Amino acid sequence: MFRLLTTISLFLLSSLLYAQHPVGFYSKADLDYVKANLVGNALLQQSLASIKKETDPWLDKPVDVPMPKDAAGGYSHERHKANYLLLFNSGILYSVTGKQAYADLIARVLLQYAKLNPGLKKHPQATSSSPGRIFWQALNDANWMVYASMAYDMAFNGIKKSDRDLITQNAFKPEVDFITQDLSTWFNLIHNHAVWATAAVGMVGIATDNEQYIQLALKGSSGNGSSGFYALMGQLFSPDGYYTEGPYYTRYALLPFMIFANALENKFPEQHLFQYRNAILEKAVNTALQHTNLDGMFFPMNDAIKDKDYTTGEMLMALNVATKAYGVKPAYLFVAKKQGRVLLGKGGVQLAKAMADPKAIPNWFPYTSIENTDGPSGKQGGLDILRLGKGEELSSLLFKYTSHGLSHGHFDKLNLNLFDGGKEILQDYGSARFVGVEQKYGGRYLPENGKYAVQTIAHNTLVVDETSHFKGEEKIAENFAPIKRFSALGQPNLLVASAMDTNATTGVRMDRSVYFLQMPNGQKILVDLLKASSATQHQYDLPFHYLGQFIHASFPYQSSKNSMTVLGKKNGYQYLWKEAEANVANTMLQFSFMNGKTFYSLSSLIQDSAKLFFARSGANDPDFNLRHDPVFVIRKNASNQTFVNVLEIHGKYDPVMETSSGGNASVQQINLVQDNQEMTVASVMVNGQALLICESRNDLNKNSQHQFEMGGKKMEWIGPYAIFYQGRKLSGGTY
Amino acid sequence: MFRLLTTISLFLLSSLLYAQHPVGFYSKADLDYVKANLVGNALLQQSLASIKKETDPWLDKPVDVPMPKDAAGGYSHERHKANYLLLFNSGILYSVTGKQAYADLIARVLLQYAKLNPGLKKHPQATSSSPGRIFWQALNDANWMVYASMAYDMAFNGIKKSDRDLITQNAFKPEVDFITQDLSTWFNLIHNHAVWATAAVGMVGIATDNEQYIQLALKGSSGNGSSGFYALMGQLFSPDGYYTEGPYYTRYALLPFMIFANALENKFPEQHLFQYRNAILEKAVNTALQHTNLDGMFFPMNDAIKDKDYTTGEMLMALNVATKAYGVKPAYLFVAKKQGRVLLGKGGVQLAKAMADPKAIPNWFPYTSIENTDGPSGKQGGLDILRLGKGEELSSLLFKYTSHGLSHGHFDKLNLNLFDGGKEILQDYGSARFVGVEQKYGGRYLPENGKYAVQTIAHNTLVVDETSHFKGEEKIAENFAPIKRFSALGQPNLLVASAMDTNATTGVRMDRSVYFLQMPNGQKILVDLLKASSATQHQYDLPFHYLGQFIHASFPYQSSKNSMTVLGKKNGYQYLWKEAEANVANTMLQFSFMNGKTFYSLSSLIQDSAKLFFARSGANDPDFNLRHDPVFVIRKNASNQTFVNVLEIHGKYDPVMETSSGGNASVQQINLVQDNQEMTVASVMVNGQALLICESRNDLNKNSQHQFEMGGKKMEWIGPYAIFYQGRKLSGGTY
Repeated sequence: MFRLLTTISLFLLSSLLYAQHPVGFYSKADLDYVKANLVGNALLQQSLASIKKETDPWLDKPVDVPMPKDAAGGYSHERHKANYLLLFNSGILYSVTGKQAYADLIARVLLQYAKLNPGLKKHPQATSSSPGRIFWQALNDANWMVYASMAYDMAFNGIKKSDRDLITQNAFKPEVDFITQDLSTWFNLIHNHAVWATAAVGMVGIATDNEQYIQLALKGSSGNGSSGFYALMGQLFSPDGYYTEGPYYTRYALLPFMIFANALENKFPEQHLFQYRNAILEKAVNTALQHTNLDGMFFPMNDAIKDKDYTTGEMLMALNVATKAYGVKPAYLFVAKKQGRVLLGKGGVQLAKAMADPKAIPNWFPYTSIENTDGPSGKQGGLDILRLGKGEELSSLLFKYTSHGLSHGHFDKLNLNLFDGGKEILQDYGSARFVGVEQKYGGRYLPENGKYAVQTIAHNTLVVDETSHFKGEEKIAENFAPIKRFSALGQPNLLVASAMDTNATTGVRMDRSVYFLQMPNGQKILVDLLKASSATQHQYDLPFHYLGQFIHASFPYQSSKNSMTVLGKKNGYQYLWKEAEANVANTMLQFSFMNGKTFYSLSSLIQDSAKLFFARSGANDPDFNLRHDPVFVIRKNASNQTFVNVLEIHGKYDPVMETSSGGNASVQQINLVQDNQEMTVASVMVNGQALLICESRNDLNKNSQHQFEMGGKKMEWIGPYAIFYQGRKLSGGTY
Repeated sequence: MFRLLTTISLFLLSSLLYAQHPVGFYSKADLDYVKANLVGNALLQQSLASIKKETDPWLDKPVDVPMPKDAAGGYSHERHKANYLLLFNSGILYSVTGKQAYADLIARVLLQYAKLNPGLKKHPQATSSSPGRIFWQALNDANWMVYASMAYDMAFNGIKKSDRDLITQNAFKPEVDFITQDLSTWFNLIHNHAVWATAAVGMVGIATDNEQYIQLALKGSSGNGSSGFYALMGQLFSPDGYYTEGPYYTRYALLPFMIFANALENKFPEQHLFQYRNAILEKAVNTALQHTNLDGMFFPMNDAIKDKDYTTGEMLMALNVATKAYGVKPAYLFVAKKQGRVLLGKGGVQLAKAMADPKAIPNWFPYTSIENTDGPSGKQGGLDILRLGKGEELSSLLFKYTSHGLSHGHFDKLNLNLFDGGKEILQDYGSARFVGVEQKYGGRYLPENGKYAVQTIAHNTLVVDETSHFKGEEKIAENFAPIKRFSALGQPNLLVASAMDTNATTGVRMDRSVYFLQMPNGQKILVDLLKASSATQHQYDLPFHYLGQFIHASFPYQSSKNSMTVLGKKNGYQYLWKEAEANVANTMLQFSFMNGKTFYSLSSLIQDSAKLFFARSGANDPDFNLRHDPVFVIRKNASNQTFVNVLEIHGKYDPVMETSSGGNASVQQINLVQDNQEMTVASVMVNGQALLICESRNDLNKNSQHQFEMGGKKMEWIGPYAIFYQGRKLSGGTY
């Protein structure tokens, strides 16, 4: 990396001497390509017409550049946001049509900012540690800089020199100085904000031919590359492209990554930036797209709002650049079709041309089971996505054993989330935030985010002694990640993943393994083994945040009738109303719910005694910020405890035809055949057929032999785990 | 009517002597038409291929006709249901293709029923007052008879005489005897069940050439026409086609009405049955279609499940017959396109032919504002649907002042429901029932239906002294309906409806008027005046069952934190958790919520003091049968009380772009300028402009002059109501 930086530094001087524009969003070659292919393609014409329709009314109308005043959702915030999008679209239109009026519009608006920006101080609504000037947080100022500088670069040749100087000095420089000097700590973070901040400064540098800005952006304030854009590309992604903050923020960070990379590629093509770190940005885009549900929504891990899908503006931009850099791919065409429009850059035009042949677009996104490592070297745990079924029958199980994920991480080691047929079945709450809604704390994260949504109890993983993982301390959590035990994701019907954690809960080792199987009759079954081991007694709570209509419980329970209290006092428990509770002992309990037209049944082995709770979020929520979603909690008091849970997807309900079928669970019995320091063997009776899940505890060698006796018969297997069905060992996805 | 019946009686004998088949579903002419037009139409070929695909696998496979055992959702129930649909489809296929194998399949299955049916007694799961034999309730037996007899009729010429005799005597006769003799009271009801029952007997009569059955079906057991099909056509609909049980049951009842009418038309074309009662069935179909939301869902008034839209099998059949009888209409084409298939009857073929020209199909269903009367003479109140906006911007306000609506009616006089852009905004709970889900009480109505969903507090109308209308007694409720005061639905931007009730709440007169306006800037505003008048003091609760995310309340409230109790003890109140409460006095309160991408704000004038509650359904619900939906309740203690509420639809939130606009309410002030025995005048300040709603209390004469003083200025108007905006009187939808 060091050599690359040096090379760019040497190259800068000469390139700036002969500075050509446009070079930020478009290279000259890009623009020629776009112009040459614009005519005759309906999608391109629509996309052009759409931005013309938004932009043209402003050509002869004043654009308000108000004094910053409001939080997100308020007038001044929304106006400044609309302004930078207007600037960017005008830049595209000027580039493509050559019509001077668009350049004039850009000059006119940027000159207004040149008047406004020099006098700005901290935004009156600023509350974050990185306050903004035009906006309440600096992040939005960086957004403004990225778009405004691209617009400026595109219109460069249509703005007279004296105006360019005013804009450079008074619109851009105060913002660059502000975020690189006043906010230098923030600027030098390894975090999605810094991706925006460095892209902002770098893009302004490229647009205004300022070498110093580009250097700052690439190498950080120190100039040694410990921060800045290269450090971010190097450290925020794992080697396979997993972005450490999770899919929701990947989406957000991809835009500055891709857009600045594109500008750098245009400016310094010899550096082959798109190939940097084995083409990490290609991996990042492909991984981000795999981290979506059937409906295109990004999986809501960590702080995430469940509104964001791959049709957002960020992904439109990312797809445009990725296509230019890495070529047209079927997956990109599928997403581009869902986006319904293309960006008028080179990649967008390539996509539109390819989409002119409808047969080139696949019917479904090519989702696969994948394993991502986390951390810059891929050594901080990971994320497994286990996928069964095809097309609209796709089921995706997320098994999360990543690192904490920076400031937006949740305390959810070994968490599970299940998606089926486009729906969330075992949910992650996501984040408590209404982004862009002024009345909801200016669109910021709400208090209930930190107090409930990030806590362990808001997830589908083990809570020990009513305390969140790492006691809910981000600083501690950042030092640890779980360890993968074994996995097998290459087989179509038989997906396995297992990981272990010894740090999240003091004195307790957690091992969790998931076996996601499609049975010969097509039924999908998840066997979830969670083993908690400790030298001392603890309260173990295992929550299942199911989404759907309660259908049936196999056990008696006492429900709250005329009054109701909370589940606990701290660590998120105070946000859960206790709707019902039960005491059970030595049984297999079954709980069924329905979501959409499908039934789901959880069958759980209860050895000894356990308490069960049906709870619902929404307590202690004076501002009605939380959703009222249900959770089923299994509570055990023990030192060593193996939870064996089987979740099956079954049946079909047709409310229009008023028919249902397969509405009853097929799991009849669960037993722990063996459960000791050497191995765990669980037997699950499904529709009269025995399914046997065997795993070794500590010897995870692929060649180790294991054996146990069952019903007087000796059973043997090799490797860390084995699955037997009707007495035969399964492998390679065959029964 | 008497003459018509006599004519049919005289005609019967001769027609039966020369009985031709098919005549139930198809007339010979229909079938010729279908066959002649089948080739070359893609939709017809798809529809044919689709039923072939379902049917053909059974041609060489045994069909199970199990001993009746299970409730709805269970195996035997679902199998018998699948069987009658298989029979019907086989009948279609035999008719259209002439392939003997289909007739053989029908004979084979019906002969199995001929073995089963004679020995059947009351179904083991029977719980209703009309127990079934093949199914748990007789209604489903009637379904079976309708479909099975059509199949038999279609296959008549392909079944040998001896088998026909066995089927007639042993499959059909026991069922006819059962429902006309054992269940004669039920058979003679005026109720949707009886529509099915009479159609069932009549269709069997037509299929088996049995004059007595046809007579029973047409004139009821008494033979005098006080019950039976003609009485049902005469009494269940109002003159304009409103079906007294409400839209959900209209859908269900339309099928037997249409299918039996079709068979009667085929059998006795000289009777012009489709023109009976000024073509009441055409009005019924058109009204039913108008009683749907933008997404095609039937408005959930009375007992209704919110899953039923106009693509159900019943509406497919209704549309097929309506098209044959009344011709192709744009509205039918729109719905047929949504259905995505057609029935292979004459009307279905007509639709498919017309749909071959895509330009013939409108982009949107032609929804309009309509007023329906209720009751056979149109004198039992009514239902007004006030519609503003077009296309996907359509907003529909339901104002319900109907009669009770028989056994599925709710206690909700002067209820309001608001739909906007395809979404429910002020909801009716609908019914507490999971039809077809065996685990939920066999798919029957759940206890919470009667105890909560039908109660007044589950609606958006006034509850007096925590007691439901008519004290929740159906027998009392059936005797009364509110009285319409005035309405004006013909203007595009200015819709008005008003009604009064003096019977639902002893000693209290309720007047409610709704003014649904689209303002010059496009904003939609509902002004809701509800006046309760009594000689004595009462507790008046006005609930708003909003659907959406709580955004902002203008008043301080105390929320339930660590514990929560119910709102009340009886009449549905015990099912509501009290999440927060407030005491307010002499103010205008405002409460905003968001649904989808739109904001909604309720502004309410509080004179004197009031209590407010935020509550949520789900208390005292041990089986988790209820949804957990929010409600905002305004409580006043008073003798005379005028509630002035303004609900505005405003703003846009774009979660993908993270922008919002217009998120704040625009109503700034509400005053009661006059409120006495003569008139009520409410002033609403909207964005700085005064909107004045004036209405006379008792003198509703169109020519009466009214006047009042405001700010020293004399205001005058003529008629029962007037609207002034910025000082000018509005009329005809102009500002």
